[in-house]
Amino acid sequence: MTKQAREVLFREAEWTDAAAFLAFMAEVADQTDFLVMDEGGLPFSVKQMETILQESAASAGKLCLLALLDEEVIGVVNVVQDKRQKLAHIGDVFLAVSKPYWGQGIGRILMEEMIAWAGHTHMLHRLELTVQVRNEAAVRLYQSLGFEIEGTKRHGAKSTEGDWLDLYYMGKLIEVDENR
Amino acid sequence: MTKQAREVLFREAEWTDAAAFLAFMAEVADQTDFLVMDEGGLPFSVKQMETILQESAASAGKLCLLALLDEEVIGVVNVVQDKRQKLAHIGDVFLAVSKPYWGQGIGRILMEEMIAWAGHTHMLHRLELTVQVRNEAAVRLYQSLGFEIEGTKRHGAKSTEGDWLDLYYMGKLIEVDENR
Repeated sequence: MTKQAREVLFREAEWTDAAAFLAFMAEVADQTDFLVMDEGGLPFSVKQMETILQESAASAGKLCLLALLDEEVIGVVNVVQDKRQKLAHIGDVFLAVSKPYWGQGIGRILMEEMIAWAGHTHMLHRLELTVQVRNEAAVRLYQSLGFEIEGTKRHGAKSTEGDWLDLYYMGKLIEVDENR
Repeated sequence: MTKQAREVLFREAEWTDAAAFLAFMAEVADQTDFLVMDEGGLPFSVKQMETILQESAASAGKLCLLALLDEEVIGVVNVVQDKRQKLAHIGDVFLAVSKPYWGQGIGRILMEEMIAWAGHTHMLHRLELTVQVRNEAAVRLYQSLGFEIEGTKRHGAKSTEGDWLDLYYMGKLIEVDENR
């Protein structure tokens, strides 16, 4: 069976994915400095990650959607709703795809699924993210999905070479269905 | 003694200020919808707040500076350094002044002291905040202190009347002293 013929599975993360999820995050943190995680990925133990994923799965305003190839996580989109009641209409979006799988549409599918989900929450009205200005493929992807560049966060990150990097603030407004 | 003759004291918060600080935050949350705290202010107990203030006082990248009139907190500027190592150059700024004391320069003094402090941390390179576009006095204050409007966060908040409000993303770059 060729690599291309294997099927990518998209599904919501469960607490049992904690170890695989942490391994993925450590891997992508190492693969690219487009992301700003510390070396080693997320600062959580498997136990802590299990709790976080469990909470995410149980929360109507949170989403952790995985792309899996066989048992391996190769992509994730994560949305966290703002905790403050008055800002509960805002969802913060994080997307990462493992570098060997860039350019194959995995990120787009994750984002499209996430946007469809957000429209059905009846709570989220604004999706937002930041992206490095130099990460042109990601900026184009987000724009094609209706995210707009709302501004530039100067020196929002630093490259591994020590240069300051600018980020775009991007946001997408989604209609809240009032007839729920 | 007239009200005007009483002296405003500016000093860093200590853990013993926890109750007064929480009372202040509940008060300002109630006074204005320029802020986005939930009703009742911060969702912390006095005990939790004591720990937060203690940590803040002990952290080189955190600041909680109070303006006090007699024993009462009438203003605060708070800075939290980003926890992620790669973003440790970013300080998130929060400013609030009790409404009866608006327009008397309390906010300006708090901000000036904070900016001077940030310059001495040898860590913070970027200060950032969001402010409602309609809060013109605050926008002017921040601009006069070197903060630039970097973009517009569409529908970043909701008024008490239920209208969507836009926020400005504002940022100020400060020189990191390399000769520390």
